[in-house]
Amino acid sequence: MRLLPSTAHKFSGGPIINPRCDYRSEPVLIRETTLSDFDGIWPIFHEIALAGDSYAYSRDTSREEAERLWIGVPRRTFVAEIGGRIVGTYYIKTNQDGPGNHVCNCGYMVSSSARGKGIATALCFHSQKTAAELGYKAMQFNFVASTNDGAVRLWQKMGFDVVGRLPRAFNHPVKGYVDALVMYKWLDT
Amino acid sequence: MRLLPSTAHKFSGGPIINPRCDYRSEPVLIRETTLSDFDGIWPIFHEIALAGDSYAYSRDTSREEAERLWIGVPRRTFVAEIGGRIVGTYYIKTNQDGPGNHVCNCGYMVSSSARGKGIATALCFHSQKTAAELGYKAMQFNFVASTNDGAVRLWQKMGFDVVGRLPRAFNHPVKGYVDALVMYKWLDT
Repeated sequence: MRLLPSTAHKFSGGPIINPRCDYRSEPVLIRETTLSDFDGIWPIFHEIALAGDSYAYSRDTSREEAERLWIGVPRRTFVAEIGGRIVGTYYIKTNQDGPGNHVCNCGYMVSSSARGKGIATALCFHSQKTAAELGYKAMQFNFVASTNDGAVRLWQKMGFDVVGRLPRAFNHPVKGYVDALVMYKWLDT
Repeated sequence: MRLLPSTAHKFSGGPIINPRCDYRSEPVLIRETTLSDFDGIWPIFHEIALAGDSYAYSRDTSREEAERLWIGVPRRTFVAEIGGRIVGTYYIKTNQDGPGNHVCNCGYMVSSSARGKGIATALCFHSQKTAAELGYKAMQFNFVASTNDGAVRLWQKMGFDVVGRLPRAFNHPVKGYVDALVMYKWLDT
């Protein structure tokens, strides 16, 4: 667990980044986590892990383990707030050590009650800035369920390529074994 | 650190598995690690990490951290012995949790003094049996340097497909940024 000074950024958004998100009426604040933030992150994490259709977390991941995975292990974790309520979150960490340590990995979660507002786009945009600030040259998503059309489309819009397809690597709760995708973006352009 | 009862297997080898390996004169024993084995593993790990051209470990990985990574984190770790001397080792672990927990990941290391004897082949063959025993359905290598021709060829011979190519994800000590490969084999056939 890290307690870091909160570095807050008002995310200005705008039509190029996400035309659906009306930041004027509901400003989205993206800031680094503080020690107490997991109270707001846990319901989102728990909901998404329990659904079992998008992330490589066990459905019965405990709150303690979730906090370790989402805040303890990563280099940095951020939250997105609307009106003081946490509606989304992302982490950033090094994907592989040594000869691979110039590539980061991020994970994003948005509360089901706040979807369709461009929060994931805002988080991904923010994470790419964070990645550059931390000196990473590329970003990789290791395990995107091929059935998660919304996510695949969104990451492609954000400049990520599908660079790998893992046959039947994702055990979907309804569809059974489906492929998982590896997505990748070189940031240093 | 786990101290498990050592389950030893005399690896019979044979021409189908590796025609180069003369197991009759120098039998290779593959067995699970015991607490004291890291003394024999560490020189191999250190040599390979220091070379920096094949594994995603920092060159300055400490012995303590190496033991955590190679024995502490994985589900099982095995060693290959010739005449009582550890000449190779592999670990097996779950690659992704939750919806991905039917796919394992393995890492293999062979002492430079024992290469060309088919030890890596024997370890990979053994690991696939172990994977099946542990209930895994597939095996994935996340980060194979595309310049590591010997490894790529060997895994392909062992039935692994290249399912992903990560552009410039591997920072090679001589060749600079080269692609890394994702390799994958479905075991449940």
